[in-house]
Amino acid sequence: MDHPHDPLVLAFDFGGTKLAAAVINPGDGRLLSLERGATPVGKGAAASIEAMFALGRQAMHAAQVSTVARVGISFGGPVSADRQHVLHSFHVADWDGLALPEMASQAFGCPASMENDANAAALGVWRFDTHQPDHMIYIQVSTGVGAGLILGGSLYRGQALAGEFGHITALPGGPECTCGKHGCLESLCSGWAIARDGRAALWQARPDSPLFRLTQGQPDRADARVVIEAARAGDPLAQPVVQRAFEALGLVIANTVYTFDPDCIVLGGGITRAEADLRAVLEPVLARELSPSYHHRFKLAFSTLDGHETLLGAALLTD
Amino acid sequence: MDHPHDPLVLAFDFGGTKLAAAVINPGDGRLLSLERGATPVGKGAAASIEAMFALGRQAMHAAQVSTVARVGISFGGPVSADRQHVLHSFHVADWDGLALPEMASQAFGCPASMENDANAAALGVWRFDTHQPDHMIYIQVSTGVGAGLILGGSLYRGQALAGEFGHITALPGGPECTCGKHGCLESLCSGWAIARDGRAALWQARPDSPLFRLTQGQPDRADARVVIEAARAGDPLAQPVVQRAFEALGLVIANTVYTFDPDCIVLGGGITRAEADLRAVLEPVLARELSPSYHHRFKLAFSTLDGHETLLGAALLTD
Repeated sequence: MDHPHDPLVLAFDFGGTKLAAAVINPGDGRLLSLERGATPVGKGAAASIEAMFALGRQAMHAAQVSTVARVGISFGGPVSADRQHVLHSFHVADWDGLALPEMASQAFGCPASMENDANAAALGVWRFDTHQPDHMIYIQVSTGVGAGLILGGSLYRGQALAGEFGHITALPGGPECTCGKHGCLESLCSGWAIARDGRAALWQARPDSPLFRLTQGQPDRADARVVIEAARAGDPLAQPVVQRAFEALGLVIANTVYTFDPDCIVLGGGITRAEADLRAVLEPVLARELSPSYHHRFKLAFSTLDGHETLLGAALLTD
Repeated sequence: MDHPHDPLVLAFDFGGTKLAAAVINPGDGRLLSLERGATPVGKGAAASIEAMFALGRQAMHAAQVSTVARVGISFGGPVSADRQHVLHSFHVADWDGLALPEMASQAFGCPASMENDANAAALGVWRFDTHQPDHMIYIQVSTGVGAGLILGGSLYRGQALAGEFGHITALPGGPECTCGKHGCLESLCSGWAIARDGRAALWQARPDSPLFRLTQGQPDRADARVVIEAARAGDPLAQPVVQRAFEALGLVIANTVYTFDPDCIVLGGGITRAEADLRAVLEPVLARELSPSYHHRFKLAFSTLDGHETLLGAALLTD
């Protein structure tokens, strides 16, 4: 389906470690171009912005367009209630208070809007992956954990920062989180937490075990993807790591059902690509943690947007 | 302040053990009359309805009115998405599917509306106790636990049953709940749970202990109010019961802040009348469980509506 007259949007995804820019048709979610780069982490916000704007110009060039109707920005960190300013980045210095939409608007000569990354991703999933249900909770599990809440057909932000599921306590007295608390969902089920537990397990791994073989015994190779793969291969040390992580996610999903009574809960982010492994743990947890009247009231789905959730959502931002 | 021309509402509160009817001026929240009775628990729904309608006529007589503009009904259990039918009562048989608003409308010759009790109470608190903030979460802790969510200035119900905080898991592997799960908030911090734990503690209580003295050693006197009073008096067995209960509530409050980023969280219900005892536990829990940027973003308040939350909310129902 072609919409030659739809206005095109330049979408930016400012992640903690990665940058991405794309020219997108917001009418149908088609990416006309996509350019990626690494976040210049040590160099401060100005270097990130410069690198992103260069990616944006590359994306426009690749899409063979000289102008776009809007810029839509997803930022990997909290943004102000009016969404005109970045509040903070946990990854790159100097972001606090920067008026990123205004800078993008000046650089590209069009209006620009910004949203937190989990919120943007939720919008993208809601519009392009589900059938715009009234009540949809999107939970993103990648390096960190976040959520975007679509309630009554629109994005719910509370005062500004709603959906911070990464720091919901899933296991009182659990492992220490980056935030200083213990037992946060993110301290149990996230890219960094699974990698941490996988590295710890590796010290006790037998040389003929899947975890040892897949990492060649090198802790820095024990990332979440490898730990999950080792568990799938029957590794006796990786399996409890993955089980604990996914059980924590299951518990938070169950609590989310009791809290919101949503039509659906959608999982996205790198960790959730292991859909079969996740379902094998989540389904018994949900059967245990939800009474029958709640268990069958919602649909549990996995995003099929293949990592483009955030860019697609950014392309939809209009205020 | 008098509003002689405001239309009056007959409000009903169908609780698990108590019935109440009041004539209320919804303009200012004034109760012109209030009649109370016990739920005829063993006699089925029809007997409850008959008893309530009799209370309603008494309340109208006491208020010296012969007609009311509306009937507003709070029901202590889940109601259908269109709020025309009761789904279920956990206390009284025969309720399933009853069209309670229609019955009240015929009995009193005016329109009638219904809402779940925690939702009704949230509306009452929002309108008459707080200054109608955009985002308010009301948590009711009495015999059971429920919540009403005011999001973006209106009641949020999800598909129908949102706000079921009683069955959020607060302590994985915790005590068994009435719902069959383990570690639900209600299984730790509710009238029945504190009484259960108080009775268990009483078996080991020394005769000179506050718990023994206050109950005279009789388990059926160890209700939540007495257990909290014993803890306040320094009872070594009651204190850990109350500490565990209130810590579970604190944890759920913290998770609620991360989830909704609300302006305020209001506590109501019988257990929350022990405000000083609750704050003594909740405040350190919240300081520990919330990062500084979230800890000071919301107001924690206690309802001042003195048990009339639900009736006052019922008086506001209009659809």
